[in-house]
Formats: sequence, C-alpha cells, structure tokens
Amino acid sequence: MSSTADLFQKQLHETGVAIEALLERLLMAEALPGETTRPTRLLAAMRHGALGGGKRLRPFLLAESARLCGADPKAALLAGAALELVHCYSLVHDDLPAMDDDDLRRGRPTVHKVYDDAMAILAGDSLLTLAFDVMARPEIHPDAAVRLDLVLGLSRAAGLGGMAGGQALDLEAEGRYETDRKPLTLSESDIRQLQAMKTGALLLFAVEAGGILGRASAPTQNALKAYGRAVGAAFQIADDILDVEADTATLGKEAGKDADRGKGTLVQRLGLDAAKAERDRLARTALEALGIFGAEADMLRAIAHFIVKRGH
Amino acid sequence: MSSTADLFQKQLHETGVAIEALLERLLMAEALPGETTRPTRLLAAMRHGALGGGKRLRPFLLAESARLCGADPKAALLAGAALELVHCYSLVHDDLPAMDDDDLRRGRPTVHKVYDDAMAILAGDSLLTLAFDVMARPEIHPDAAVRLDLVLGLSRAAGLGGMAGGQALDLEAEGRYETDRKPLTLSESDIRQLQAMKTGALLLFAVEAGGILGRASAPTQNALKAYGRAVGAAFQIADDILDVEADTATLGKEAGKDADRGKGTLVQRLGLDAAKAERDRLARTALEALGIFGAEADMLRAIAHFIVKRGH
Repeated sequence: MSSTADLFQKQLHETGVAIEALLERLLMAEALPGETTRPTRLLAAMRHGALGGGKRLRPFLLAESARLCGADPKAALLAGAALELVHCYSLVHDDLPAMDDDDLRRGRPTVHKVYDDAMAILAGDSLLTLAFDVMARPEIHPDAAVRLDLVLGLSRAAGLGGMAGGQALDLEAEGRYETDRKPLTLSESDIRQLQAMKTGALLLFAVEAGGILGRASAPTQNALKAYGRAVGAAFQIADDILDVEADTATLGKEAGKDADRGKGTLVQRLGLDAAKAERDRLARTALEALGIFGAEADMLRAIAHFIVKRGH
Repeated sequence: MSSTADLFQKQLHETGVAIEALLERLLMAEALPGETTRPTRLLAAMRHGALGGGKRLRPFLLAESARLCGADPKAALLAGAALELVHCYSLVHDDLPAMDDDDLRRGRPTVHKVYDDAMAILAGDSLLTLAFDVMARPEIHPDAAVRLDLVLGLSRAAGLGGMAGGQALDLEAEGRYETDRKPLTLSESDIRQLQAMKTGALLLFAVEAGGILGRASAPTQNALKAYGRAVGAAFQIADDILDVEADTATLGKEAGKDADRGKGTLVQRLGLDAAKAERDRLARTALEALGIFGAEADMLRAIAHFIVKRGH
C-alpha cells in the first residue's frame, strides 16, 4: 500500500502541475475569436481566483476515471481544467462578504480583498462562463454529442439543482432567513442532501465526466457514480471534521467559523466521533463500488484513503 | 410603413408572451434529471429576476434572424429563452449594491431588495448556468455541432471578452479604481469598445444565433453581423439618451444615475445632439446591412426603427 500511496502523491502532484499550466493558458491576456478584448483588471482578478492553489482534486478524479475508461488523457485534463474553473468561481463568490465573508483562502487574501466585491462578482461570473466555453471546444472530444453531454452534466451539477442550490440551502441552514429567531435544526437527511448538492454534485460529476469521455458502459458508469457519490459525501464530512479540529495557522482559513455560524454539518448533528465513523464508512462504500475493477482503479482507491487520512 | 410598425408591435408582443411561457417552464419547481432538488427560496429569487418584465428584445432579434434563415421557429424561441436567462442574470448582478446599486428595475424592487445580496448572487449564478443547460438541449437543434456552436458563441459573448468584461470596464470608467483622484476621461473609441462589449456582444450574438440555427451562408451571416453590431451600438446610445431625458416615473429606475456616476457614455462624450445623430447613423447602417434581403427582413428593419423612436 505504501508504494500506491507514494504513486498517488506523485500523480496528484503531476495532475496539479498540468492543470495549473492549462489554467494559465486559458487565462492569457490575448482575446480569442468572438471576444473583443480581455480587460486587465478583470483578468487579474480571475487569475487570482484560479491560479496558484488547491489540490486540484476534481480534475484528478476526472483524469483518473477517464484513464480507467480509456479516454484520451490530454482531453481529460482540459475537461478537468473546465471543471476546476467552476470550482474556483464558486470559491470566489462564496468568500464574498454577502456570502461566507472570508478574508483568507489557502493562506492568501481572497479575490474581493485584493480587488473589490464588484470585481470578485464579475471574476466569478467570468470563470463560470469560461468553463462552458472550454467544455464546448473540439479538443475535449471529436464527437460533438460527447461534449454536449459534458456541458449538460456540468450545468446540472453546478446550477440551482446542484452546487449553487446547495450553497443557497447552506445560507438557509445558518438561520439567516428565520423570522421567529428559533434555532434552525436540520434533520440528518436534510444535511446529507445539502452536502450532496453543495460539494457532492461537482465531485460526482468529475467522476461521471471521465466515464462520458471514455464512453463507458452502463455498469462502469453505475460503479463510478456509486463511487463518486460516496467519495463526495466522505470528502465533505472530512472537511467539516478538519474545520472543527484544525487551527487557523495550519489550514490557512479561519477555523471553526462554520460551526460558529451554526451551519448544518454532520459533525454538529452526530458529534465528532460518529462523524468520523460515518466518513470511514463512506470511504469503504466508495472502495466497494470499485470492486468490479482491478488494479487500474488503484488511484481512485487511493483518493478514498487520502480523504480519510488527509491533514488539511 | 404604418402597417409594418403595427405588425412589429404585434410580433414583439407575441414573442414576449412565448418567451415568458418558456421561462416559466424552465423555472418550474420540479428537479430535472441530474438535479437533486430546486431550493424554494433560490428558485423564487431566480423567478423574480427572470419573469414578468422586459421587452425580450434579444429573443426577438434571435427569432427574427432565425426566421430569415429558415430555422425552426420553436427551437429559435427556446434558444431565445436561453439568451434571455443570460441577460436577466446580468441585470440581477449589475443591480447589486457592490455594482450599480439599483433598488428598482422595471418599476419593481430588484432581486437583492426582495431577497438579499447572497441570494441575488446565487440567483444570477444559477440563471447563467441554466442558460448553458438550455442551449445544450436536443430541442434546440438535432445536430449537436450546431448546439455546440451556440454554446461556444454564447460563452464568448457573455464572458470576460464580452458582456462581463464590458461591465468591468464600465466600473473602471466610473473612476472607482483611480488612485490619484483625477477625473477619468475615456476616448470615444474606448467608450465604443466598452459598449460593444457591455450590451453589444449579447445583441450581436442574438442575431448571429439565428444564422447559426438556420445554417446561414457566409454572405448572410456577414450581413447579419454588420446589422447586429450597428443595432447593438444604436441601442446603447438610445438607452443613454433615454437615461438623460427620462424621469424616474416613466422609466421605472432612477434616471440620470449613470451620468451622476460619471460613466463613459457617448452622450456625455459627444453631447446630446451629436449622440442622437450617431444613433440615427447607426440605425441607417443597420438598415443598409440588410440590403441583400427582401421583405423577409422587414421585422429586423422595424427593430432598427423602434430603437430610434422608442420612448422607454
């Protein structure tokens, strides 16, 4: 297992480097056909929000499920970059004062702190728009129908019935729309649904997108979906556990803030020990879903291990 | 000409009714495949931002250029609804306190006044995301390559090199990023570029999209592009003239506000009379671009007349 863990760290790092290079290229100063000009300040705000940070876990999930399904690795990386643009847009908007009001992200000032709220709103909007631009490009796949499946899947995962909807539910979970000042209590299943949308939908789509690119068979796609759902849920619980346990210095953001806001997390609902057990159970479910695959799924298996063990 | 004007008003009205019905259907409570659930409050904010208002000029431009190119009218209306979702998202975000800070839109409170800033940000994000969802659907065109051309064209028109970039330049034109407190003066060509992006790009794309749907020949597409560019520029100047001339009661928004902010408009740069002359010149250019067409382009011609004459 140790050599798989080493290989995983190496592959994760290499994918991260490749994604950074692609994002750098996608956020060049030169205008593309159909664009007039790329305004300097807006582009700088977009670059601040997208470059130089993060594990690039979503692109890694996409690249590994694509490899498992025999898809072109170069195309999978570009699709991963499109997905990462959506993830970055969501962080830029979530950090805004009107939303989660965070000054730091990965130890650096957030986009609205460096620029301003207006430029952060527009930078987020433009990162999201660019994601669909990239997903529609011929380099993603020679078959237009495949690219359309990706565009459609991405929009459903990111929109009102997915990530953005989950963020809306999360704001409600804070109790900011309560009029009678009673503390809001979400059921366990409400919390699971909220998290399946807020972070789960995009993680699940990352895995599905690999299958779409590789034109995977139905059994393969179903196995990947079961894996993606479990990994997504485990990831969010692990994140909430870290938020409670970590301190500001090691995490690079204001730790414990989510709990202060009274947000609905499974850690809060079930307690820390039960949440850890649930995280581990979901990781096992993810591994079981991969049972139909051989060693070619070892990197996907390593992700499930990584989520359980990661320090930040 | 009078009967053409009557027919134009009738067609514009009918397209508006059809678009309203489509938007109503697109913003139903039921979740689509790939969505988990559509959160009530977020959906309500999206509906407030998209339903019950506006001339639906972009869908009308799309529908009329599609008709000229022999495209399926029903598909053109759906593509027009997708385009209108993008337009509505931009209004919801532009009205935010961090951006243009408007309390009224078409005589009604803006989305962030009825809900809050956070929900308005997410509603805008979700309207934009839904637009790409709709544009990728099979009902838009049986050929996937055509739908991809629309997705790609829409993202370029709406993104950092188009509409969102134009809004960023407009914020800069206000002088809010000036450090030495000198009044910012934009050249006439800077203003034309800003406006070609901020409002022109989406209006131009509306006309181009009709050509894409109808698989128009290169000469037809070039004529439509020349028309779309001129109409887009004329529309923005007409809007700026109205903003100076109209009062709050008739316009339903705080008139003169743009001028107060010192924004770069051609009215401010050239003066009111020269701006009117420029608007009329651009309308003539738009009509000339349609010279290769016969009576089948009369509705597009009527739009150019409408822009010059409209009261609000």
